[in-house]
Amino acid sequence: MLISLELSTNKQDEWQDITGLVSDTIRKADVENGIVLVYCPHTTAGITINENADPDVVSDVQMRFHEVYPWEHPKYLHMEGNTAAHLKAITVGSSQQVIIQNGALLLGQWQGIFFCEFDGPRKRTVHVKIIED
Amino acid sequence: MLISLELSTNKQDEWQDITGLVSDTIRKADVENGIVLVYCPHTTAGITINENADPDVVSDVQMRFHEVYPWEHPKYLHMEGNTAAHLKAITVGSSQQVIIQNGALLLGQWQGIFFCEFDGPRKRTVHVKIIED
Amino acid sequence: MLISLELSTNKQDEWQDITGLVSDTIRKADVENGIVLVYCPHTTAGITINENADPDVVSDVQMRFHEVYPWEHPKYLHMEGNTAAHLKAITVGSSQQVIIQNGALLLGQWQGIFFCEFDGPRKRTVHVKIIED
Repeated sequence: MLISLELSTNKQDEWQDITGLVSDTIRKADVENGIVLVYCPHTTAGITINENADPDVVSDVQMRFHEVYPWEHPKYLHMEGNTAAHLKAITVGSSQQVIIQNGALLLGQWQGIFFCEFDGPRKRTVHVKIIED
Repeated sequence: MLISLELSTNKQDEWQDITGLVSDTIRKADVENGIVLVYCPHTTAGITINENADPDVVSDVQMRFHEVYPWEHPKYLHMEGNTAAHLKAITVGSSQQVIIQNGALLLGQWQGIFFCEFDGPRKRTVHVKIIED
Repeated sequence: MLISLELSTNKQDEWQDITGLVSDTIRKADVENGIVLVYCPHTTAGITINENADPDVVSDVQMRFHEVYPWEHPKYLHMEGNTAAHLKAITVGSSQQVIIQNGALLLGQWQGIFFCEFDGPRKRTVHVKIIED
């Protein structure tokens, strides 16, 4: 089963917690056990799974990623000027998988699923693909 | 099929080769062909697949990751003080997939599956989810 | 279904766009819907999904990865001398997944699948594993 979600991002660097959206999708799909693939079809955004309790985790990660993959660099050639966003997207990855157990996402206590915008604001899409057991 | 494994890590930065544990799980599950998802439900640890022949590969990777994502940083805000572990967990990823072929893991000659502890020592869990063909 | 593709790389750092190869494999397999796992069984190469329109994106990413994970480092211990390639392989990941919808890869408009050689030139293999709905 495939469901596509639409998102709007509001800043250049913005991680949106989409755990609730993905959970709702699983619930509506009425799936008992399996795997869900959360897939980002964009090249300057990605998906990661990490802590969604303290928002300082996300802002610290964004800060350090910005230092490691700076927006401006004397050797960047890509005319669009968003090479840093591609670097970050490749680092976090274009998709993540989560186990579905007894109708719910089997996430760790502190884990959330994030859509990681690296070149917003933009309209974005996330594909949620469910593989039932 | 879902099996959860329990691990204990002994150091802050410690990669444990869990290839044997995952292989045993596949064997006991008596699966012929499919895919296995090896999933880490923690936010300061992750899963990677890389060389398990020369231990200097792991120690070199840990050393350079520590330089790129340092433990101390004047701009980190996260009170728990383990932002570096979150950065490394996001970089390696929270899960990996391996193909199961003829009842065995289809790994490359030099590949092993590692549980990557970035904020130990701790008790940890790894979920092994099998999708049969 | 499992198909293995053979590649030859020609340079130390070389990303090959294998989108067409993977697409052809899906078409020949005559699969309508599901997921494909594109898996690299090597430890100094990986798989990523990113822009395949402007080749400057790939060369910018290779350039910055080379700075972040340099080939030479006073603290590297691994005798083979290719720690940088292991670091990059771990960062991009050993596999990627793509959704198969109506017999085709559901990639974003600018997305392509790349085999990322980090220690070529070499003969390499890519496993394509299809999970049908």
